[in-house]
Amino acid sequence: MRIAQIAPLMEAVPPKLYGGTERIVAYLTDELVAMGHEVSLFASGDSVTGARLEAAYPQALRLDPMIRDHVAPLVAMLETVAQRAHEFDIIHLHCDYLAFPVLARCGVPFLATLHGRLDLPELRLVYKAFPNVPVISISDSQREPLPEPRYVATVYHGLPEQLLSPGDGAGGYLAFLGRISPEKAPDRAIRIAARAGMKLRIAAKIDAADREYFAAEVEPLLAEPHVDFVGEIAEHQKSEFLGNAAALLFPIAWPEPFGLAMIEAMACGTPVIALRNGSVPEVIDDGVTGLIVDDEEAAATAARQIHMLDRTVIRAVFERRFTARRMAQDYIRIYQDLISAQT
Amino acid sequence: MRIAQIAPLMEAVPPKLYGGTERIVAYLTDELVAMGHEVSLFASGDSVTGARLEAAYPQALRLDPMIRDHVAPLVAMLETVAQRAHEFDIIHLHCDYLAFPVLARCGVPFLATLHGRLDLPELRLVYKAFPNVPVISISDSQREPLPEPRYVATVYHGLPEQLLSPGDGAGGYLAFLGRISPEKAPDRAIRIAARAGMKLRIAAKIDAADREYFAAEVEPLLAEPHVDFVGEIAEHQKSEFLGNAAALLFPIAWPEPFGLAMIEAMACGTPVIALRNGSVPEVIDDGVTGLIVDDEEAAATAARQIHMLDRTVIRAVFERRFTARRMAQDYIRIYQDLISAQT
Repeated sequence: MRIAQIAPLMEAVPPKLYGGTERIVAYLTDELVAMGHEVSLFASGDSVTGARLEAAYPQALRLDPMIRDHVAPLVAMLETVAQRAHEFDIIHLHCDYLAFPVLARCGVPFLATLHGRLDLPELRLVYKAFPNVPVISISDSQREPLPEPRYVATVYHGLPEQLLSPGDGAGGYLAFLGRISPEKAPDRAIRIAARAGMKLRIAAKIDAADREYFAAEVEPLLAEPHVDFVGEIAEHQKSEFLGNAAALLFPIAWPEPFGLAMIEAMACGTPVIALRNGSVPEVIDDGVTGLIVDDEEAAATAARQIHMLDRTVIRAVFERRFTARRMAQDYIRIYQDLISAQT
Repeated sequence: MRIAQIAPLMEAVPPKLYGGTERIVAYLTDELVAMGHEVSLFASGDSVTGARLEAAYPQALRLDPMIRDHVAPLVAMLETVAQRAHEFDIIHLHCDYLAFPVLARCGVPFLATLHGRLDLPELRLVYKAFPNVPVISISDSQREPLPEPRYVATVYHGLPEQLLSPGDGAGGYLAFLGRISPEKAPDRAIRIAARAGMKLRIAAKIDAADREYFAAEVEPLLAEPHVDFVGEIAEHQKSEFLGNAAALLFPIAWPEPFGLAMIEAMACGTPVIALRNGSVPEVIDDGVTGLIVDDEEAAATAARQIHMLDRTVIRAVFERRFTARRMAQDYIRIYQDLISAQT
């Protein structure tokens, strides 16, 4: 199949820094290539891929300090995609709605995976204008605030099977992984660990936008003796960080659209203790790969019981449900359906 | 002629607050209606127009505190325009390049007036992708940093002929009108007036983005006895403010794409003393409607000589070169050319 993957341009594919969308685009693209498909990746020129790279801008926009209009390079890229649309059997968008008007008039099947939060009211207007464009959600719950698009499937994210390796949790600590932000609620994680009488290790980056929150709400808590703040960690450090943990704490305070950290933990055989919100009940098999709770007290109780979950089973569920291969296979089936429907 | 005018959605047409683009769209639209054309105005729902208003969003985006994605309502509006393109003989865009991909595939003649600064390097990519879309500059000098588009004409802005009325300059002061910002250089105006030994009255708004600049560079100078800061003024106060002034000081420190304040002054018969930059030599007839200078010392000298220019002549030049009727006539000729070229 001749497939075009269209990445956002904010980060390279895969991202040099944090960038969930671009990471998934990288995993999907490489897996499709491994499955023998002919894939073109439209992305920033500093991307690294097994597909044919169509460099739409020299570097990731986030790394270009001079750029002010972040839409212009995207529109230029999408025009190139539109002009070359006939070269592809299917065009897969990862940059939201911006290409809908032009691709709807190009005659080549296309679809869009919606990677972000969908609870902005102004999005309803734009998706209402495109009731026929097939759209993929990354969890069923992600759809709730935005009923307008034509959802054809939910496809859960996946990781390359060998990216992370299972650990035995011998470190005995609770782990927090991700961004420092009110939505991810590291302050909650600190309180939960304290209540459970367990160590907490926090591996997290702090965006400029979240510095104020960090200083006010999180930094004062870092002095507590049970807390170890290790800063941002690289991909290759995750197996050790997660694999040695008794559990990942995922105490989110917002409707998480997917939550990559949860499946990263599972890939390490590490169970997840998560607050019920957004995608959590879809991603975690409650009582198997983790425990879903409704408040901090229940989370602390869960932390003391979490060793009862079987880490081998958790890894097995990861291999069945959350590999990049499974994700790519899901997408291939959807591509085939859309192509058949068009012809 | 059946004409669609496509406004940006940041401000109402005409704007409730500052908004040069939306003000010009209002003047042009009303003038085209007055000339007997059938005009549809796509704009925010709080716009007021003699044309048929196609409300694309309930209110100006700048006034909606909840909105985060300012592109979504625009894309939704542009899809409506595209779907209804066949209802119009010509579509006139005032929202830059965003509609180019879809309108280029609709078969209806369209053009875009570029209202903003064009010196962002990322714009070159996007305009290079659309070498056939006809584009209007608002001064010849505006084109310099962006040679890529297909410029079909420069059309200078215009004001309704009766909007402002001539004054006799009896107040004897120098006037500064516009935004407080480093580009508009009110600090220079203060120094020039001091050097000329004349009073300066400043009528200007302060955007949130410019508060820091105001506090650091301008506010300390306001205590000087020759300076009178009157704050932001409304449209209906401009005739008095400008008409009583000996001259408008326009000491800009950037390549101004057009500079509405200059023609507002001319409409009041008031000469302009401007630093040579951007559109200035195109808008001012040097020695007739104003004096163009190269530094602050020359500006101060000009201020002392400016009473020698004939205010009746200045108003006459305004009526010939810078009315909304002249602007609308220019556009009608361009619309006709584009329509003939297409058929």
